[in-house]
This record gives sequence, structure tokens and C-alpha cells, in this order.
Amino acid sequence: MQQPCYTAAELALALGGILQGESTVHITGLNRIEYARAGELTFVQSAHYAKYLQYTQASCVLIPRDLPATPRAGQALIRVDHPYRAFVAAMALLVPEKQPPWGSRHPSAIVDPTATIAPTAVIGAYCVIGPHCVVADRVILHPMVVLYEDVSVGESSVLHAGVVCYPRTVIGKRCLIHAGVVLGADGFGFWEGKQGELQKIPHVGGVVLGDGVEIGANTTVDRSLAGNTEIGDGTKVDNLVHVAHNVSIGEHTAIAAQVGISGSTRLGKRNRLGGQVGIVGHVSIGDDVVIEAKSGVSKSLPGPGRYFGTPAREHYVALRQEAALRQLPELLREVQNLRRQVEELRTWYEASNQRNG
Amino acid sequence: MQQPCYTAAELALALGGILQGESTVHITGLNRIEYARAGELTFVQSAHYAKYLQYTQASCVLIPRDLPATPRAGQALIRVDHPYRAFVAAMALLVPEKQPPWGSRHPSAIVDPTATIAPTAVIGAYCVIGPHCVVADRVILHPMVVLYEDVSVGESSVLHAGVVCYPRTVIGKRCLIHAGVVLGADGFGFWEGKQGELQKIPHVGGVVLGDGVEIGANTTVDRSLAGNTEIGDGTKVDNLVHVAHNVSIGEHTAIAAQVGISGSTRLGKRNRLGGQVGIVGHVSIGDDVVIEAKSGVSKSLPGPGRYFGTPAREHYVALRQEAALRQLPELLREVQNLRRQVEELRTWYEASNQRNG
Amino acid sequence: MQQPCYTAAELALALGGILQGESTVHITGLNRIEYARAGELTFVQSAHYAKYLQYTQASCVLIPRDLPATPRAGQALIRVDHPYRAFVAAMALLVPEKQPPWGSRHPSAIVDPTATIAPTAVIGAYCVIGPHCVVADRVILHPMVVLYEDVSVGESSVLHAGVVCYPRTVIGKRCLIHAGVVLGADGFGFWEGKQGELQKIPHVGGVVLGDGVEIGANTTVDRSLAGNTEIGDGTKVDNLVHVAHNVSIGEHTAIAAQVGISGSTRLGKRNRLGGQVGIVGHVSIGDDVVIEAKSGVSKSLPGPGRYFGTPAREHYVALRQEAALRQLPELLREVQNLRRQVEELRTWYEASNQRNG
Repeated sequence: MQQPCYTAAELALALGGILQGESTVHITGLNRIEYARAGELTFVQSAHYAKYLQYTQASCVLIPRDLPATPRAGQALIRVDHPYRAFVAAMALLVPEKQPPWGSRHPSAIVDPTATIAPTAVIGAYCVIGPHCVVADRVILHPMVVLYEDVSVGESSVLHAGVVCYPRTVIGKRCLIHAGVVLGADGFGFWEGKQGELQKIPHVGGVVLGDGVEIGANTTVDRSLAGNTEIGDGTKVDNLVHVAHNVSIGEHTAIAAQVGISGSTRLGKRNRLGGQVGIVGHVSIGDDVVIEAKSGVSKSLPGPGRYFGTPAREHYVALRQEAALRQLPELLREVQNLRRQVEELRTWYEASNQRNG
Repeated sequence: MQQPCYTAAELALALGGILQGESTVHITGLNRIEYARAGELTFVQSAHYAKYLQYTQASCVLIPRDLPATPRAGQALIRVDHPYRAFVAAMALLVPEKQPPWGSRHPSAIVDPTATIAPTAVIGAYCVIGPHCVVADRVILHPMVVLYEDVSVGESSVLHAGVVCYPRTVIGKRCLIHAGVVLGADGFGFWEGKQGELQKIPHVGGVVLGDGVEIGANTTVDRSLAGNTEIGDGTKVDNLVHVAHNVSIGEHTAIAAQVGISGSTRLGKRNRLGGQVGIVGHVSIGDDVVIEAKSGVSKSLPGPGRYFGTPAREHYVALRQEAALRQLPELLREVQNLRRQVEELRTWYEASNQRNG
Repeated sequence: MQQPCYTAAELALALGGILQGESTVHITGLNRIEYARAGELTFVQSAHYAKYLQYTQASCVLIPRDLPATPRAGQALIRVDHPYRAFVAAMALLVPEKQPPWGSRHPSAIVDPTATIAPTAVIGAYCVIGPHCVVADRVILHPMVVLYEDVSVGESSVLHAGVVCYPRTVIGKRCLIHAGVVLGADGFGFWEGKQGELQKIPHVGGVVLGDGVEIGANTTVDRSLAGNTEIGDGTKVDNLVHVAHNVSIGEHTAIAAQVGISGSTRLGKRNRLGGQVGIVGHVSIGDDVVIEAKSGVSKSLPGPGRYFGTPAREHYVALRQEAALRQLPELLREVQNLRRQVEELRTWYEASNQRNG
């Protein structure tokens, strides 16, 4: 692999920035500012990180246009409108994505004769593709992806190593499914018998992901009782998240790691769920709802709104209760003190009453 | 695949219900009532969902015997004792399970010569079965199941794609192990050295699952220090659950997603654990215990009982504290007000005392 | 497999203990005291477990030197300084580890011609090793490990079945990576558009594990935006943990199951995190910090220290608030009572004032 190499001047030109300092320094990699070394590009997004400027060994730093700073010897500064975005743009230059071998199928892949594989799809080693599956153009299946039967993967979607799709899973276009994800396992539903024994309720539905959905590593999305568990277009789900059977999640929602959403719950659009949030089953969450990390949602929440706590309540209410809770030990002492004073007053009063009586 | 097709009259007969409306309408699928379309069967379990009756496009609806409702044009209603159960019974007709290829072994499966595979077992592609394993009759191993050595899988159990069983894992009869499950990884136990360094404690025990156990996708059950980590007959575990080393879980227990049970803890029978519950190590939970979602259990809990909160306490106590907490900000103001009044009274009293003194 | 067999006298000699009772009894296995049977070795670490001594069927029990106890008929006691450690030492005798087939490569393994595999490494069935990977001496890759490209695994490390390493993952020496672990998946970072749509921020960094790191089953560690997500030497991570992009974890830290650490957060050395702890992004945790199970950390925490709760606060403060919270329902009644008394006093006072006025 030939390592890409750019001068600071070339990067400034490519990123639309104004160069200051050493224009000929060679840049071959990039890093965050705390870690960057000579030969690397880094960035300072705001004044908060400007303190690192005096320590960084980076050869080239993207900075805001108006940040007061001068380059050290041998160093280049590039002033841009949005250093973070410019840094990401530079990734495409310094860490170019490799072209996958479009239209290749590893000889070890096992593809059922009734499956349809588009000519440009890439099928990795040891993939197993079951009956009636459909794999569209420019799909990439990394090694050991298992598609049971009747699974459909839309154009330009990528499934990483070891992803398992149970029957009737439908993945939209441009989805990104990370390693270890399980889509379409049985919903967790049982009838309880008289002796407490649990009788399984079969789930014959599927899982449907819209277009542009991303699912993080080792996340699980269960299939529906009937019909589909649904995740809307553009929604992004982090690692180790649990999405139960019959759940419906709206478009452009972001769900952080280790969130759990129980059966038949419906989420609206553009929600933001913090890490480790839990939501009970059979409730509805509106559009544009923010649920802070670790909250436990026990009832339906209207949107737009911001919620926190277990049980989740409006964020400002939760903060007020939290502040009050911090005063509670002192309050207990205060009330004890008041009680003593009231008793004293009462004694005095009764004594004085008797004197005057 | 030939799609099954029944008339409403045939379904009513098969499900023991009373038909109302269009008896000849053809049914080829089923769905939940919010989503059902023409040609589909759906159900209304209770009056709560009856509102959907006027909107649903379903061609046939299972309803309670006494629900006031009349079929629309071209629609059939079937009155039954328990619509949800009738709906599930209809699944077997409309989405018949496929017969697995009993007694087949995919040529890519790698089976150690010392392993014993029953003649009717199904061994999927790319399975790896280690020394001294025993796979009983009518077991189904989906693709890429890995059994290390000395693993035993009982009759009629199903292991989904990518399940990994470490040495000395024993799976009972009729178990269902979902994709990505890891049984028997090392317990998380260390001795702490003087410099804080962690010295690994080896775990040479196993994992034993009883009969009829279900384990959800990507759940992990660690093996014991010595002896076994045990899960009792009929117990059902949801996705992404962590069961630590030496844990013992009784029969007919249901454990929702993302629960974590720490090392050496023992649970009784017929427990119900809500999602994201955590239980510390080395405690005992009785029989017939319900622990509400997100609770953190820090000590042993007797059964029967219902618990909630972190630390978990009796449910009614937790609710009372929760209600009190909501009043806390107001209480703070109230106490401040009382303090002012008491001071006023005191001033008056002392002044009046002086006058009278 | 020949089962190892030792007499109690031989074990006492090997473990440096003093034998009491039946010296010739044969020991072929070991178990925890609640479960041990005839022919097995067990241990009692402290007086707390001594009650089991009268019930255990174990043929041989390791006990503290000074514990008052006499062996039953046919039973041996071995008195040692540290029974638990002696028990673990006995594991090596009674459950000897098998020698792996050093220097073997299963013919089904797919190794890119540009990868470097050390001569003593063990490469299991169906492993897939990508371009420019380096696998050092005495590394064991269990079946179905997938190394994307530019992955490096240090000497004597073990990767269990189904581990997936994305590009640029670096694993140190003597690491132990359990089944289902995913190292190096994309960080969860997005820019939010004006309509709430989420635009992916690419992550081109890697994951670097130090030496002696253990990662539990189905845990995920995301790769960095640029540079590396880092886990220090000797750190042990339990199952189903989420470590986000750009996180840095110091040496000799223990992280229990289902913990979640958000992006760009930095942990010091020798931390101890209880199960299900969550930490927000972009904060710093000091050295020698203990965070109790289920805590939610919302800001930086200095070390050394012990913290608990959501939001996490100093442990003694959290306990005091918890104790106060338990008194809250009573406090509400108390304040109501005080209010009534104060009103009464006021009425009396005003009446008496009028009389005297």
C-alpha cells in the first residue's frame, strides 16, 4: 500500500483554507490533537482545545479562521470555516477508501440456487445465503454473513462479518450493519400457565429497515409477532442495543449504545436516545423527543420534549427534584430543629397561658 | 413456495369460532390490526383495540365472543373465546413451519471423529464440532455453530447461526439458543495484587441448561469456577443478558433483555425480571419474585414479592418514596415558610415575655 | 481422555498443606462446596462457608489452618494458608490444560498472501485473515475469527470463536479475547442536518489493546475518529461492555459486565467499574476510582475516590441521600403536623395578644 502524501499547501488548497507557516511540510496521516505526531494533520475546533496548540507535535493544524495563533517552526496552520469538517474531508485524501472487488463472490460462499445475487454485489468468504434471498447491486457482504431465507438486502448496503438475518428480514438501501448484529430473532413473548410455566408465542413476522439505516455491533432487533418490526429511513443505532418485537422507530432517530426498547413500543421521528435508556412496552414516544442517558421510560411521552430519570419525567422537573434531593439530608436536620422549637414555644405558651389563666 | 390460502369459513371451522359476514373471502396472511391489509387475518383481543375495527383493511378479524361489532362489506368477523390464542393457532395454518432436512450434515461441517452425532440431527454449513461432543436426535445446528469440546446438546434443541459453546457446556432437550449466544466463556474473576494488578482466576466449570430453556440473541452465560452455572427447566432469557459464573437460576423464570446477574447469585423459581435489571453477586432471590425493569438489586430478596428501584426495595415502598420525591421541591419551600413563622412566633413570644416579665 | 487422579495425601503435598483424616481417598475432580460430590475436592475460604462442612459430600476439603473442624469418615481435610488459592492451584492438576497444536493452520483458514503468520501460531477452522495482518508466535485463533486488514495480534494472545477485528486493530501480548467480541467497528458520530437528518462522520482510527488485556464475550470496542481507542496493559473487561470511539482506559482497570463508556472519555489507572455503569462522553476519570454498579457518571471524577448513583456522586453522599430518601414519606407527615401546630400557636398568640392588647 502506497501511503498518501500531501504538502500543507496542497491540503490548504484542497480544503479551501488559508495557509500560515511552513507550506512544504509533508503530511501522511491524521490524528486528534492530544496524540498527533510529526507528519500528521490535526484540528482545533474551538478555543477550548486551543491549549493543545502549544504542545502538539502535529505538522499541520486546521484552526478556526479567527483563532489567535501563530505556527511554530516547521509547522503549518490552515484556517478554515469549520475545522472538524475540514479534518473529515481530509480523511478522504489521507486515508482513501479501498475499492471493493465489485462483482466478486468468494468460492467458499454457499448460495442457495433460488437466491438472486446482483452482478455487482460482493459476497465474502464463508457467507451462507438461503432460499429466495435477494442481494442487490453494490451490496457488500463481509465474511460469514448468514442470511436465512426470504432475506432482502437493498442496493449499496454493507453487512459486516458475522451478521445474521433470520427469515423475512428486509434491509433497505445504503444501510450499514456492523459485525455481530442479529436481525429477526424470535420476539420474547410467552403465555404464563397456572404453574408459572411459560408457553412460547411464535413470531412469524419480520424486520424491515428503511434506507440509510446504521446498526451498531452486536445489536439485536427481534422480529414481529406478525407484520414487521420497523426502523425508519436514516435512523442510526449504536452498539449492543435491544429492539424488541413489533417495535416501530421513526426516521432520522439516533439511539445510543445499550438502549433497550420493549415490545410493541412506537417511537416518532428525529428522537435522540442517550446510552442505556430503557423504554417499557406498548407506549408511544412523539417526534423530536430527547431522552437523556440511563432514563427509564415507563409511559408514553409527547414530543417535542426532553426527559430524564427513572421513571422518566420532563428534564427540568427531574433536575429540580435532583437539586431538592441534594438538600434532603440538611432538610431532615432543619425539620428536627423546627420540631424542637415548636415544642418549646408550645410549652412556653401553655405555661404563660396558665399564669395568665 | 406455495402460499397457503383459506376462506374465512375454513378458518372459523379450524379455530372453533362463529363466523359473521363474508364467509368466502380468501385469507393468505396475517398481521397486527394497525398494519393488516386485504387478504389478511388479524385480531382484537380486548375493547381497548376495538377502535381499530373501523379502520382496518383486514379481510378477517378474530374478536371476543361478546364484543359489539358488525362486519363491513367484504369482511368476516370470527368470534372466539381468546382471539390472541386463536390468532397464534392460525399462524400454524397460514405460515406453516418448514420441515428441516432431518439427518443431514452439510459437507462443509467439521466434526471431530470422537464426537457423537445422532442420525436425525441437522448440522448446518461451516459448523465446527469438537472432540467428545454429543449432538442428540432432531437437534438443529444452523450454520457456523461452534462447539468446543465435551459439549452436549439434548434432543430437539435448536442452535441458531454463530452460537459458540465453550468446553463442558450442557444443553438440555427442546432448548432454543438464538444467534450470537456465547455459553461458557471464562468467569470474570481476578485477584488483586499489591500494585492493583489483576491476576486471573481460572474457571474450569461448565454451563448447564435444563430442558425447554430459551436464550435470546447475543446473550452470554459464563462458566463456573468449578461445577456449573445453571439455568433451570423452562426458563426463558431474552437478548443481550449477562449471566455470570456460578449463577444458578431456577425453573420457569423469565428474564427480559439486558439484565445482568453477577457471580454466584442464586435465583429461585418462577421469577420475572424486567429489562435492564442488575443483581449484585453472592445474593439469593426467592421463588415467585418480580423485579421491575431497571432495578438494581443490592441484597438478597425473599419471595414471593415485588421489588423496584436502585437499590431495589418492596414495590409499594418504592412507589411511596417516588411519590414523596415528587413533592420534595414544594416541601423545601414549605419548610422555609415554617421556619420564618416559627422565628416570628419566637420573637413575639420573647417580646411579650419581656413585657409581662 | 485419561481423567487425572490424586490421593488426598498427594494433593496435600503438592499444595503445601497439612492433611487430616483419610489420606488415601481418590480425588478426580473439583467443585464448589454446595455442589461437591464424592471423589471431588472443594474448599472453605472463611468461617462464613464452614456451615457447609457438615453437609458436603466432597472427599477432600481445603480449609484455613485455624478453622475448628474434624474430618468425617472417609474424608480428608487439608489445612492451608489460603484455601481459595490452593483450590485454584489444584485446578492445574485435576483439570490440566490441553496443549494446543502449536504451529498448525486448519486447511479451511483463508489467509491473505500479504499476511504474516508466525510459525508457532494456531489458526483454527474457517478463520479469515486479511491483507497485511500480523499474527505473532503462540497466538491461538479459534474457529471463525475474522481479521480485516492491517490487524496485528501479539505473542501468546488467544482469540475465541467468531471474534471480529476491523482494520487497524492492534492486540498486545498475552491478551484473551472472548467469543463474539467486535473490535474496531465505526464510532457512533454524526452531524445533524437542518431537518434532523444524520450525516455520518467517518472514523479512520483504530483500536489498540495493551498487553495482558482480557475482553469478555460479545463486548464491543469502537475505533477512533483518528488515532486510537486505547485499553491499557492488564485491564480486564467483562461481557457485553461498550467502549466507544476515542476512549482511553488506563492500566490494570476492571470493568464489569454491561458497562457503557461514551466517546472520547478518558479513564485513569486501576479503576474498578461495577456492572451496568454508564459514563457520558468527553469526561475524565482519575486513577484508583471505584464506581459502584449501575451508576451514571455525568461529569469528570477525581481519583482516588468511590462514587455511586445517577448522577454519580461521592459514595458517602449518595448513601446519606439514600438514607434521607427512605425517611421522606415520614418527613412529609411530620412537616404537615408542624404546620398545623404552628398555625395553632399563631392563633393562640394572636388571640392572647388581642386580650392583652
